[in-house]
Amino acid sequence: MLRGAARALTVGSLNPKVVALADHHLAGRVARRAQSMQEDLESNPASPPFQRVDYLLQPQQSAVPRAAANKFFREVLALCEYPHLLDRSQTSFLFSSDAIARAQDILGLIPGRSTGGYSHCQGIEGLRDAIADGIASRDGLPSYADDIFLTDGAAAPVHMMMHLLIRDKEDGILCPIPSHSLYTDSMVLRGATLVPYYLDESKGNPTGQVLSEENQCEIVELCKNEGLVLLADEVYQENIYTDQKKFNSFKKVAGSIGHGEGDISLVSFHSVSNGYYGECGRRGGYMEVTGFSSEVRKEVYKVASLSPCSNISGQILMSLVMNPPKVGDESYTSYRAERDGILSSLSRCAEAMVSTFNSLEGMSCSKAEGAISLFPSVRLPPQAISAAEAMNTEPDAFYALRLLESTGIVVVPGSVFGQVPGTWHFKCTILPQEEKIPLIISRFKAFHEAFMEEFRS
Amino acid sequence: MLRGAARALTVGSLNPKVVALADHHLAGRVARRAQSMQEDLESNPASPPFQRVDYLLQPQQSAVPRAAANKFFREVLALCEYPHLLDRSQTSFLFSSDAIARAQDILGLIPGRSTGGYSHCQGIEGLRDAIADGIASRDGLPSYADDIFLTDGAAAPVHMMMHLLIRDKEDGILCPIPSHSLYTDSMVLRGATLVPYYLDESKGNPTGQVLSEENQCEIVELCKNEGLVLLADEVYQENIYTDQKKFNSFKKVAGSIGHGEGDISLVSFHSVSNGYYGECGRRGGYMEVTGFSSEVRKEVYKVASLSPCSNISGQILMSLVMNPPKVGDESYTSYRAERDGILSSLSRCAEAMVSTFNSLEGMSCSKAEGAISLFPSVRLPPQAISAAEAMNTEPDAFYALRLLESTGIVVVPGSVFGQVPGTWHFKCTILPQEEKIPLIISRFKAFHEAFMEEFRS
Repeated sequence: MLRGAARALTVGSLNPKVVALADHHLAGRVARRAQSMQEDLESNPASPPFQRVDYLLQPQQSAVPRAAANKFFREVLALCEYPHLLDRSQTSFLFSSDAIARAQDILGLIPGRSTGGYSHCQGIEGLRDAIADGIASRDGLPSYADDIFLTDGAAAPVHMMMHLLIRDKEDGILCPIPSHSLYTDSMVLRGATLVPYYLDESKGNPTGQVLSEENQCEIVELCKNEGLVLLADEVYQENIYTDQKKFNSFKKVAGSIGHGEGDISLVSFHSVSNGYYGECGRRGGYMEVTGFSSEVRKEVYKVASLSPCSNISGQILMSLVMNPPKVGDESYTSYRAERDGILSSLSRCAEAMVSTFNSLEGMSCSKAEGAISLFPSVRLPPQAISAAEAMNTEPDAFYALRLLESTGIVVVPGSVFGQVPGTWHFKCTILPQEEKIPLIISRFKAFHEAFMEEFRS
Repeated sequence: MLRGAARALTVGSLNPKVVALADHHLAGRVARRAQSMQEDLESNPASPPFQRVDYLLQPQQSAVPRAAANKFFREVLALCEYPHLLDRSQTSFLFSSDAIARAQDILGLIPGRSTGGYSHCQGIEGLRDAIADGIASRDGLPSYADDIFLTDGAAAPVHMMMHLLIRDKEDGILCPIPSHSLYTDSMVLRGATLVPYYLDESKGNPTGQVLSEENQCEIVELCKNEGLVLLADEVYQENIYTDQKKFNSFKKVAGSIGHGEGDISLVSFHSVSNGYYGECGRRGGYMEVTGFSSEVRKEVYKVASLSPCSNISGQILMSLVMNPPKVGDESYTSYRAERDGILSSLSRCAEAMVSTFNSLEGMSCSKAEGAISLFPSVRLPPQAISAAEAMNTEPDAFYALRLLESTGIVVVPGSVFGQVPGTWHFKCTILPQEEKIPLIISRFKAFHEAFMEEFRS
């Protein structure tokens, strides 16, 4: 069979909204160059002046996963995959008693005790009950299984809601800049108008900050007064690295100022891909949908039912995340140790990277309070900007490419996410293994100092 | 917090293409009534004249899964979920040796040996290699990992391709009627024009038939000559119940008449939800994309990359389905026995149902050659049609509702899927447990005879 292409289909005959999408997931030239360098390294380890490419990107862009531990979660998932284990005596030597009990409970919630069937398109009801209980105890407010839609990660329900809410370019979506490509892609795909607003770097995620409760109240009031639907990406609710701040859901904040479902339409997204567990490959997630009329709720259900159901393992894991081992359970000590170990390691990585960035000429970076990303700014010398322009490259992409070429470190230019005009940034994550951080930092410092020297006017 | 709705959002401010979608997944009044009857039964078991509601629907509509066995598959999945098991001596007592070896192989394909990370957005490369090998040995033609996109079931890639291929209502999609709601929904959502053609009931799935190779050749020639993209739903490739027919992929058929990638753009969809394994809840699937130009292929990739990756367990299971135990492997005998047992049970269920339908007044049903559905026709008496019209109900929905009310048996009216005007059908699956079939059949027969008697003119 010849490799080739039938005559019919050209890019011009495809959906122009898809074609118009920027190739975010390749993150443009930087990531393409990183990939070719990695391939070079694999085929000829001696060629560049370093031994590996270090991705300081979002994990989905780097395809370099964190190897999470999560013993209790994995035990329960394995038992649910192969329930026959629950009938065998050797199982008690291999699995903790609370994992066995939890798997029994979960299988009891599923018709036929099998994870092989489709579930209700919102997800298994008993798992949604557990998640609603977890939300209620987190917020001190009621939560209902009927409002929970279990989904394949958090990207799927964001696409669902965008699909439902957007008619055409007359519909605008207020979106913080820098933004996650998930949101901007979704808007471009549906033809909505992006209504951007710039984050104060010292105050908002995705620049690594935790919103203050006061700021959240202002957002709630704005949405209430203007009749806006609030789509709250709350996937980093467990990733907070400062004692001075805590996670407050928008639902809780709205409740605290007396606003309930009659006042604000609110969708909260969560997933199993972050927190300390970082189980990105499981594609577990949920959205909690509150403050919609029953007619609109029917349409939410209709969009959700376009796919049969989300994967059952992801549903189970989402329920475990919202209902982890408790004090007194056999797994509690190891669960707590894993959790605290991972979160404090992330915190130390963040601190080391932030303090490095802040020590360098022309760079500044907000203290990482939460989430997994940093968004340092770099005041690029005029000669570097001219050199970039001469190559028809965004100055921050020029910086990132030079960084990659000389160190193998991959970051994403700020222009991919948006930034205040005239400022230059890059985005990186705090996810590299902690033992690699010192080497990454020393290579980064050496590059940056040489770069600033080279383009000094 | 008050339960209610904020003022902003009405159905009128939602995406009209979503609102225009029929509520297929509720399958209208019949399924809603079935659900309320089931709830009545649960709260008051004595009320209706039967003890349970029997869903003869697609499993996703009934939420009553088949409890599949699939021992080898589940063993491998459990070991991949919790790889720590591979280091323990007791594991050899609990798992078969080839499942252990396979799990080791699969983990070796994944960076970090962890299923917890995102994969490449097309799926783990080594798993795509295994799937391409399986396709190649099935068809006797080369298949390439680069052409495989691992997906959450087969619904996701169908939506992807529709999303990519449809610009507006000037784009038409030729679609067999009766159709699966996945396809018609997808077209409505993207605003394409449905170009329907009626299946000859005796010759095409979803009426339970296996296409002849000659018919497939005609379809290939039509697509080649008219420059049409062929979207081939090949999810029932293992569900064939007759010795006279076998599954031929459209890729193989095209190859057999000398057509390769330069002649026809072809997408083949497959999933882990059917076959004998029926692992619907795993949401594993793939599409194989051939005969597209490199520019168009980039756009396919772009659509796929809108979500980070499909769930890794589903990816693993899809690779197992395409590369099951072989002769000589420890699990081969039990795998073969399970597989043959389930497929022959499905075949017997189908045969019993088909011969019942054909024995009844005014009914006819094609012999079930493959897949999981039957689509019997019912010549409804004129008085039944008048009674339905008086209730402003489609005559086949009227029949289905009466069937439900008097027997608890749930089928889907043919009008949901489309049918030749003036004919009436219902769709049912062959999935009920075999031991329940005699009772279902006797209740069905009694109902049908009484119905025909009641409306006899």
